Amino acid sequence: MSMNLLRHGFKVTVWNRTLSRCDELVEHGATVGESPASVIKKCKYTIAMLSDPAAALSVVFGEDGVLEQIGTGKGYIDMSTVDAETSCKISEAITSKGGSFLEAPVSGSKKPAEDGQLVILAAGEKTLYDAVLPAFDVLGKKSFFLGQVGNGAKLKLVVNMIMGSMMNAFSEGLVLADKSGLDPLALLDVLDLGAMANPMFKMKGPSMIKGSYSPAFPLKHQQKDMRLAIALGDENAVPMPLAAAANEAFKKARSMGLGDLDFSAVHETVASGKSSS
Amino acid sequence: MSMNLLRHGFKVTVWNRTLSRCDELVEHGATVGESPASVIKKCKYTIAMLSDPAAALSVVFGEDGVLEQIGTGKGYIDMSTVDAETSCKISEAITSKGGSFLEAPVSGSKKPAEDGQLVILAAGEKTLYDAVLPAFDVLGKKSFFLGQVGNGAKLKLVVNMIMGSMMNAFSEGLVLADKSGLDPLALLDVLDLGAMANPMFKMKGPSMIKGSYSPAFPLKHQQKDMRLAIALGDENAVPMPLAAAANEAFKKARSMGLGDLDFSAVHETVASGKSSS
Amino acid sequence: MSMNLLRHGFKVTVWNRTLSRCDELVEHGATVGESPASVIKKCKYTIAMLSDPAAALSVVFGEDGVLEQIGTGKGYIDMSTVDAETSCKISEAITSKGGSFLEAPVSGSKKPAEDGQLVILAAGEKTLYDAVLPAFDVLGKKSFFLGQVGNGAKLKLVVNMIMGSMMNAFSEGLVLADKSGLDPLALLDVLDLGAMANPMFKMKGPSMIKGSYSPAFPLKHQQKDMRLAIALGDENAVPMPLAAAANEAFKKARSMGLGDLDFSAVHETVASGKSSS
Amino acid sequence: MSMNLLRHGFKVTVWNRTLSRCDELVEHGATVGESPASVIKKCKYTIAMLSDPAAALSVVFGEDGVLEQIGTGKGYIDMSTVDAETSCKISEAITSKGGSFLEAPVSGSKKPAEDGQLVILAAGEKTLYDAVLPAFDVLGKKSFFLGQVGNGAKLKLVVNMIMGSMMNAFSEGLVLADKSGLDPLALLDVLDLGAMANPMFKMKGPSMIKGSYSPAFPLKHQQKDMRLAIALGDENAVPMPLAAAANEAFKKARSMGLGDLDFSAVHETVASGKSSS
Repeated sequence: MSMNLLRHGFKVTVWNRTLSRCDELVEHGATVGESPASVIKKCKYTIAMLSDPAAALSVVFGEDGVLEQIGTGKGYIDMSTVDAETSCKISEAITSKGGSFLEAPVSGSKKPAEDGQLVILAAGEKTLYDAVLPAFDVLGKKSFFLGQVGNGAKLKLVVNMIMGSMMNAFSEGLVLADKSGLDPLALLDVLDLGAMANPMFKMKGPSMIKGSYSPAFPLKHQQKDMRLAIALGDENAVPMPLAAAANEAFKKARSMGLGDLDFSAVHETVASGKSSS
Repeated sequence: MSMNLLRHGFKVTVWNRTLSRCDELVEHGATVGESPASVIKKCKYTIAMLSDPAAALSVVFGEDGVLEQIGTGKGYIDMSTVDAETSCKISEAITSKGGSFLEAPVSGSKKPAEDGQLVILAAGEKTLYDAVLPAFDVLGKKSFFLGQVGNGAKLKLVVNMIMGSMMNAFSEGLVLADKSGLDPLALLDVLDLGAMANPMFKMKGPSMIKGSYSPAFPLKHQQKDMRLAIALGDENAVPMPLAAAANEAFKKARSMGLGDLDFSAVHETVASGKSSS
Repeated sequence: MSMNLLRHGFKVTVWNRTLSRCDELVEHGATVGESPASVIKKCKYTIAMLSDPAAALSVVFGEDGVLEQIGTGKGYIDMSTVDAETSCKISEAITSKGGSFLEAPVSGSKKPAEDGQLVILAAGEKTLYDAVLPAFDVLGKKSFFLGQVGNGAKLKLVVNMIMGSMMNAFSEGLVLADKSGLDPLALLDVLDLGAMANPMFKMKGPSMIKGSYSPAFPLKHQQKDMRLAIALGDENAVPMPLAAAANEAFKKARSMGLGDLDFSAVHETVASGKSSS
Repeated sequence: MSMNLLRHGFKVTVWNRTLSRCDELVEHGATVGESPASVIKKCKYTIAMLSDPAAALSVVFGEDGVLEQIGTGKGYIDMSTVDAETSCKISEAITSKGGSFLEAPVSGSKKPAEDGQLVILAAGEKTLYDAVLPAFDVLGKKSFFLGQVGNGAKLKLVVNMIMGSMMNAFSEGLVLADKSGLDPLALLDVLDLGAMANPMFKMKGPSMIKGSYSPAFPLKHQQKDMRLAIALGDENAVPMPLAAAANEAFKKARSMGLGDLDFSAVHETVASGKSSS
């Protein structure tokens, strides 16, 4: 992501817990900051991309952290995937110091990040969003401004809930085809030619048929997102019987010891019978 | 479909219960047969496309029907959407007279039919399939040979089952977004940019958000297909909790009087609450 | 059942495919008929109790069967458990000959039959019901007249559907207690003291906890009844999400090879995980 | 409950936020304490029965609260229905002062409390349990010792989860009977004579058929317990598809504005269709 910014002429100061990871960027013109605080001090806008809520919090609240230098006229954009609560906590801390804040989780993983093809789900300070849009245009193929902080996290949950239900429906179809004497590969081909054609079925289908589930998105994380989406529905009295059935199938998969495999391993909960009677 | 065959140089004899429907085709070079039997008599290969199982059976078994002229060296291809049982009944009658048979239901409706962009799910006599492939290549963008008679019908059920579950998952997502204070249109945009992007969400989403469900595929037909797919799973001991939950949601929609609307009206079973407490 | 009638002073003529089975009854005063037809000839009211629909049909429509002697003034009561369709077929045949008909499936198995403690679900000719009530009072602790033929079979389906869902809910509770570090036997005790106390939980619970499922009511039959109940709901547009989820769990159990065990073996679909992650 | 203790010769000191509520007890021989602390000071064993977690916490941690006088040789028994977390918090505070603690939620409401027919789910200090068993024998018909603090709350959740699923299964059966042309009252009678006979169906059935749901246990509380039971299953990787389907039905009921009615109002989610097609 930093490389893409450099390539498009942005002036970039970088920091990473493991400093050597900055080397390549420095070769391409980046400056190095000694700490999150020093990056904030040098820059008008700072973008964070961290692995989990704990890291996101530590970079802000820890020693030499963001809070020590943030203030009026400075913007902090957290593009990590964290829960709405973590986002709100960071937002409050930043804004109480006079800084402005944007949560901006992304949809898409390594390849889209390299290619500047991420989808950016931003929420928080609208003026900050407008200010950093040129950077978002370089990092992603599309960015959305979704209103108040927390909405980015929520929208990701809704998307992942639909994904989890679709994966279960797909698994049931693959097994039904197979057990009914049809070629599951023919099912993949037919699906790919119709109104339901989508990259996920195309990508995951062939390996699922082989019973191979090397983890792109671990099943236990998918199940956690289903649970959180259902909790969001609970708050708002939205009945979601398919999401609930999908969640239980993912829990069944966890009880079978499949939690660390790819979420497509939920296929095994449908397929794993021995014989019928 | 006949027009496409004519345009590509096939010699075509046509018959329709309502003879005037053949006029345009005649202008473009088609010959008219007086009855199904007389079409069979004149042609080596006959393609039928009828509205339902009753019509499919009547054209074969009725007076001046297919059976009166079918025999060795002649092929009959039924492209109607019928159940596996009807297909098998027709198949047996044709083959017992020495004829050869292919069921070939299609995926795609009016527009793809006109554009020669159907997906053809053929099953039955492989040599007949090979012989008529040039015609299938004109009628569709892709055709599949799926083995024994009945497999075409079964594959369509599997596809429609996945479609029904996806539609429910999508409906839950749209309502969850809305009730959680997110813009459902933003959800559509984000979905359309990610791994789950598919023509159905893109096509149906905007009208569903408006609560508009003018029938492309009636909900009661979708529910019937869910029921038949679940019955197929029952025969083969395939547990399908998502399909089952989707089926009950479609039944709920029927109980709300929505059976004649588009199947996307299942959205109302999630959305139609008054207030929460 | 015949013994109970004899004990209460009824004059009884018996027939069984295996004649020796009548010996004990003859010792207690029964007369033997040579065939179903000859029983009908001798008696004003004939009660049938057969193992399945095929036997029920054969005794009526076969050689020396009921139809050969049935007529005005004679009543035929079928207490076998058969589907509504079989009942209706027998009913039509009997009544078209001038006879009167009652379907009267029972709730309760061997012990209640011996003790005259059956529950009788009768439907059909009301005057015949009134006439044979004294016999029903001997055979059962309670009998119901449910209206038109088919209603007895339907009510049994509704009852068995509730039973199947309750068994699944109970299984989930037992596993949840166990995995949460609670003693499942304590759960049984607490349930048995509260508003949900019922003989089924009390009877089945201890053996389920031991993983013992010797078949009283085979799982595949329970699943068949769930399927038929769901089909009945489908006809009448009744959404039944719990029955549907229970049905899929029973199908899962079938796919695990448990179809011939007791229906309480559905417990294994919840319990059978290895480890969680 | 205090009255029952007095009747059986226990020496009782009482306290209530609203002092006048103690009058009747004083007439029967009770002494009044001025505060929770003063009751603890006077008594070796103190039993609390409070309306919710907030009250349970306030009596312990508040001014003149339990903690001010609790210590070695004194036991505190909380019979309120609270979550496991609240119980654990109280337990830690009591034991860190040298006191001993028991959580002891009950199953049963007003009438069983008056009649000494409660079911007591105790967990915590076993020696305290043994010491107060004579009192429990007066208050309840049965008491259980369930191990570590939190287990009482958990067992109540499991029981209520089964209750919620049973109520849904029952609702589906009532509507299925009705829509299939059967008399739902006959269903009640048949159920009450069979292996599934239970007080809840008997008590709730007639009013449910009338569409009357005056709140004994509010639906929103039942749904909350379903949610917490599912969360407990989530922690332990227990798949619970029926509980999940029941939970969504209760959420549907909430979305229809039925949250404050009795939990049997979930019946309306099955019944409330208009017409079928």
